[in-house]
Amino acid sequence: MTETRSHRQERPPRKRRSDGERSRNAILNEAAHLATVEGIEGLSISRLADAVGMSKSGLFAHFGSKEELQLATIETATATFNELVVEPALAAPTGLERLQQLTDKFLHYVDKVYPGGCFFASVSAEMDTRPGPVRDRTVELQDYWHELLEQAVRDAQAEGDLSAAEEPEQLAFELNSFLYLANSEFVVTGKPLPLERGRRAITSRIAAAANGS
Amino acid sequence: MTETRSHRQERPPRKRRSDGERSRNAILNEAAHLATVEGIEGLSISRLADAVGMSKSGLFAHFGSKEELQLATIETATATFNELVVEPALAAPTGLERLQQLTDKFLHYVDKVYPGGCFFASVSAEMDTRPGPVRDRTVELQDYWHELLEQAVRDAQAEGDLSAAEEPEQLAFELNSFLYLANSEFVVTGKPLPLERGRRAITSRIAAAANGS
Repeated sequence: MTETRSHRQERPPRKRRSDGERSRNAILNEAAHLATVEGIEGLSISRLADAVGMSKSGLFAHFGSKEELQLATIETATATFNELVVEPALAAPTGLERLQQLTDKFLHYVDKVYPGGCFFASVSAEMDTRPGPVRDRTVELQDYWHELLEQAVRDAQAEGDLSAAEEPEQLAFELNSFLYLANSEFVVTGKPLPLERGRRAITSRIAAAANGS
Repeated sequence: MTETRSHRQERPPRKRRSDGERSRNAILNEAAHLATVEGIEGLSISRLADAVGMSKSGLFAHFGSKEELQLATIETATATFNELVVEPALAAPTGLERLQQLTDKFLHYVDKVYPGGCFFASVSAEMDTRPGPVRDRTVELQDYWHELLEQAVRDAQAEGDLSAAEEPEQLAFELNSFLYLANSEFVVTGKPLPLERGRRAITSRIAAAANGS
């Protein structure tokens, strides 16, 4: 990945992907979908080869091992999450709006992207008791998500939109709880009611924090 | 299970278990422990035979199939949960106390019983996208838990201890959210802080519902 591209001055400012990269991304996106249904431990190179209609040896050219495939799948799911949830939410002008958009876009993502709901909740529940790089990376990403929520709370407090009496870590935990159970019950039931319950819980909790009640 | 026992008038009022039942219970308890770490899909008869030091054929005498073993494991975990959480909590005299004890004893159970936290959260996260009797039974038990929380809320409202303005299903969802994320983060981090956050969240949410705020 350190290959120099300085000779390609003619390329457009928008990042273009080579066929190889597109193919790799398509494969990893399929892998992320599969992982939310069958588990990331069930994500073997041969299982994925069946799903994308490639030969096992073709996939080995992309990924040398199951663990490499798992880690690359996590990075692809992270890029999707950043694109759909984090980046648009962080573009909002105030801390309060960033908090509202992080939670709202999360619930939208749960409903729309993967068949098994939130990719990270799915992988985390599976890997929580299995030490190794896959688990470590999942934990890092969950910490990152928690910090995004906390930072939005802190910003909203600094801007006077949320009560200074709220402990940011605790409020982030509570909001994240609603997201987490909404995701889980949505996946189990296949019905939108848990997402609606999550939205209502978040709206009233943020309102309580705004009133300082 | 329809075998008549009317001729055994001499047996003591406290239910006694035969050696076979004790052995079966010990095996299933080990299976429940294993399932919270390795997943209930990883719970094969041969894996369990290794763990309990029995022959594979000996275990086949107890359980005819992997699915039968999985379902029996769920029943054993349910009995443990009822004994440690549900029954003592339901013995409390008021709806409010039952609600407090259900949540408090749940957090204690998460910490003390299985290496992978709540058995049902673990199995549910794993089986949510895998249709079949194991998933169906897990969903039933989660519904049962939800109804216990809702009923305690309704009783507390009828007794004037919680505001009638609270929607019982929504309040149960919110309290269950705190339990669910507390369990998940406790398992991932191995530290008690998430359980403490869950306790604090529950205490303040119940206090808000009591005040009608």
